[in-house]
Amino acid sequence: MGQPRIGLYGLGTMGSALALNFAGRGIDIAVANREAEWLAPFLDRAGPLADRITGCADPAALVLSLPRPRLILLMIPSGAPVDAMIDTFLPLLSPGDTLIDAGNSDFHDTRRRTAALTGQGIGFVGLGVSGGEEGARNGPSMMLGGSRDSWSLLRPLLEPIAARFQGDPCVAHMGPDGAGHFVKTVHNGIEYADMQMIAEVYGLMRDGAGWGAARIGALFAEWDKGPLRSFLVETTARVLAAVDPETGQPMVDLIRDRAGQKGTGRWTVIEALRLGQSASVIEAAVAARGWSGLPRLSGAKPAGQRQFQPEQLENALQAGRLIAHLQGFGIMRAAAEEYGWPLDLARVAEIWRAGCIIRSDLLDRLAPILRGAGDGPIYLAPEAADLLSSVLPALRASVSQAVATALPVPALSAALAWADSLAQPRGTANLIQAQRDAFGRHGFERIDRPGEAHFDW
Amino acid sequence: MGQPRIGLYGLGTMGSALALNFAGRGIDIAVANREAEWLAPFLDRAGPLADRITGCADPAALVLSLPRPRLILLMIPSGAPVDAMIDTFLPLLSPGDTLIDAGNSDFHDTRRRTAALTGQGIGFVGLGVSGGEEGARNGPSMMLGGSRDSWSLLRPLLEPIAARFQGDPCVAHMGPDGAGHFVKTVHNGIEYADMQMIAEVYGLMRDGAGWGAARIGALFAEWDKGPLRSFLVETTARVLAAVDPETGQPMVDLIRDRAGQKGTGRWTVIEALRLGQSASVIEAAVAARGWSGLPRLSGAKPAGQRQFQPEQLENALQAGRLIAHLQGFGIMRAAAEEYGWPLDLARVAEIWRAGCIIRSDLLDRLAPILRGAGDGPIYLAPEAADLLSSVLPALRASVSQAVATALPVPALSAALAWADSLAQPRGTANLIQAQRDAFGRHGFERIDRPGEAHFDW
Repeated sequence: MGQPRIGLYGLGTMGSALALNFAGRGIDIAVANREAEWLAPFLDRAGPLADRITGCADPAALVLSLPRPRLILLMIPSGAPVDAMIDTFLPLLSPGDTLIDAGNSDFHDTRRRTAALTGQGIGFVGLGVSGGEEGARNGPSMMLGGSRDSWSLLRPLLEPIAARFQGDPCVAHMGPDGAGHFVKTVHNGIEYADMQMIAEVYGLMRDGAGWGAARIGALFAEWDKGPLRSFLVETTARVLAAVDPETGQPMVDLIRDRAGQKGTGRWTVIEALRLGQSASVIEAAVAARGWSGLPRLSGAKPAGQRQFQPEQLENALQAGRLIAHLQGFGIMRAAAEEYGWPLDLARVAEIWRAGCIIRSDLLDRLAPILRGAGDGPIYLAPEAADLLSSVLPALRASVSQAVATALPVPALSAALAWADSLAQPRGTANLIQAQRDAFGRHGFERIDRPGEAHFDW
Repeated sequence: MGQPRIGLYGLGTMGSALALNFAGRGIDIAVANREAEWLAPFLDRAGPLADRITGCADPAALVLSLPRPRLILLMIPSGAPVDAMIDTFLPLLSPGDTLIDAGNSDFHDTRRRTAALTGQGIGFVGLGVSGGEEGARNGPSMMLGGSRDSWSLLRPLLEPIAARFQGDPCVAHMGPDGAGHFVKTVHNGIEYADMQMIAEVYGLMRDGAGWGAARIGALFAEWDKGPLRSFLVETTARVLAAVDPETGQPMVDLIRDRAGQKGTGRWTVIEALRLGQSASVIEAAVAARGWSGLPRLSGAKPAGQRQFQPEQLENALQAGRLIAHLQGFGIMRAAAEEYGWPLDLARVAEIWRAGCIIRSDLLDRLAPILRGAGDGPIYLAPEAADLLSSVLPALRASVSQAVATALPVPALSAALAWADSLAQPRGTANLIQAQRDAFGRHGFERIDRPGEAHFDW
């Protein structure tokens, strides 16, 4: 057993998987956990990989096992536990050591922690890790926020464990302090939107066309061979095909239609609002999860049946997905300007092409578009606009039919409303400005001359 | 001239109007302003009312002019200026005196300031004031957040200047600390939603049916005699009728279609998200204002013409307005639970029936519904559900047609999506839960047995 090159604290699902990933890539690692009794069973499960894993009884032992400068990765719940663990490690560390928070932390916390620790000579990295347990074990997509020095130290350890897209490791330096956690937050926001739109399309087929789970699943499997190819569409096909062994019924039909959520979808929308950006598709997805837990309006009648064209739904989903991504990348660009991050949006798309939950062919298509988009809005890049206009009619037709049939499509509607608003040659905000001037003397611009105008209404 | 009963600092549009309102109701008042040179012209404009107004050169003079316990109302821009002015006044005040912040402050700031000042024996009140300049001058709707003692002190001064609905003064004690500013924030959020939906309906007539401003204005004037009767519909009729004297064109046609916004719409959405509530209609309105300032998608084609039934649009607008209010009241109820405010939602509706921007016949209809709604969701109160079901088909038909014709209706769509989601007998969140369990082991509930379940997908 060689000397560990990195320490990892927190042997939950994600931490255990990451530790095995390091070991499997030949990187000796030291691990510790709040409950020290988890160590032995974890090392048992590690099998031959245990040779590269040093179990440590506590944080002090973890620190002592590492060469300086030390790299210690925390994979623990976000929020107060991270602050508590920083307080625990801080007296044990020496200047030049680096703590890495690999959980789903709020990037504001990461900025605060970076500032506090930097003042004490300790490096701090906010590392977004996507891909769930399977990604953590076999190759996650990772978004690093921290100093250039910390990136230099960590890159040789993270590139070997990262997912690869055509050989390119899916890990990159997003910028300083909170940049990595911010990008991970937006990733999760897009994930919310994508999952919601998939569920809406599923609903159109289930409640509109009256199809069963297996038939819908087969269609998603088909779509996974075309432009919609992605982890989430593949997963959808898989879960729709699953059958409950006890009842023989499709498993999804036995699951309560009430969705849980953690904070990242909501955070994305809040940050977008703070930045004056729109995350309307993500907002609709967050809202829909919330509504799923509310009492239903009584007296509601099941919607009438209606046939939907599979190809139309496929393109509608592609349109919604594209718009959710355009909004997400718009939010990241605004945040980069606000916080002074040198964020490379094309690189973000590239490292999301493998390992993470939203990996998709669309991201591979977007990466070069983002590379060439310049400073203007991404949706004005000709390839993005062409792609959108090729699938927008299907989105329009699907939403129109769904709305007429009382089938709820909050996220697809929000996506269409965004596109139609931006495509309107002349909007209706002139009326809003007239109202605001009439009751609040807010003033307005005229189209026929420069400067602020008022009118005595 | 008698001794002033209240001091007012800040003689901008709103402060001047409030001061004249106090004086006009026979309440002697002392006023001061950062720019002392504003005093003389203000007193000139006050005419005979100047007899009841004591001009003071600075904060110290304002404080000295008042009997103890002193009541000093700040009508200044929210944010840092309020903190600065508190710091200015604090050394001049005595225990038992009260500062009243009558601006559009973030209620979190109001909570913080209340806690800080209470510790020093100074009362602090966050007073939401709605109605624009005209309301401030002739009778605003006011939402008071503060202690019961401060309400007792201020009530005799505020009831005379408040708007009245059938004799009932539109001012009430919402609860302690930030309750008044919170309710005012939600008021503004609903205002955003209502204005946006009016603009969307205007767009359907302008771009869908090809109607001119005067014809659309006449229809709004007609609607103002029916269930849509409200200040905003009346204002809409008025601004659509206005003609530019220079060009002879309808004034709205000369106004740039780019809407400004201050913070309160955005704050409402952020607070709703934090509370796990949905403000999707308000969010769409905030988003639409933001989009109005963005570059348009090139190559967009004007939508084809389509006839809309005026009565259908009238009911669609009523449905959207109702849903925006249901969401807004839901947010207030959640905030009251979160912050321990004894918020009387029916009273909120009552004091919004006159003086404020969103005053409407709908609020008069909602007040008794809220009074009888109990603890369940407001939308389940039978009268609310009946009202909704009577206008929902028109909303559905309008949105369906608009969507098919590429006319953007982001807020009306969001309203419909909310209603359809809550009316769906079985939602589609079961698929989301299946996905989450498949890639993240999040677990799910089964419909056929209690407890958390997992599945090996």
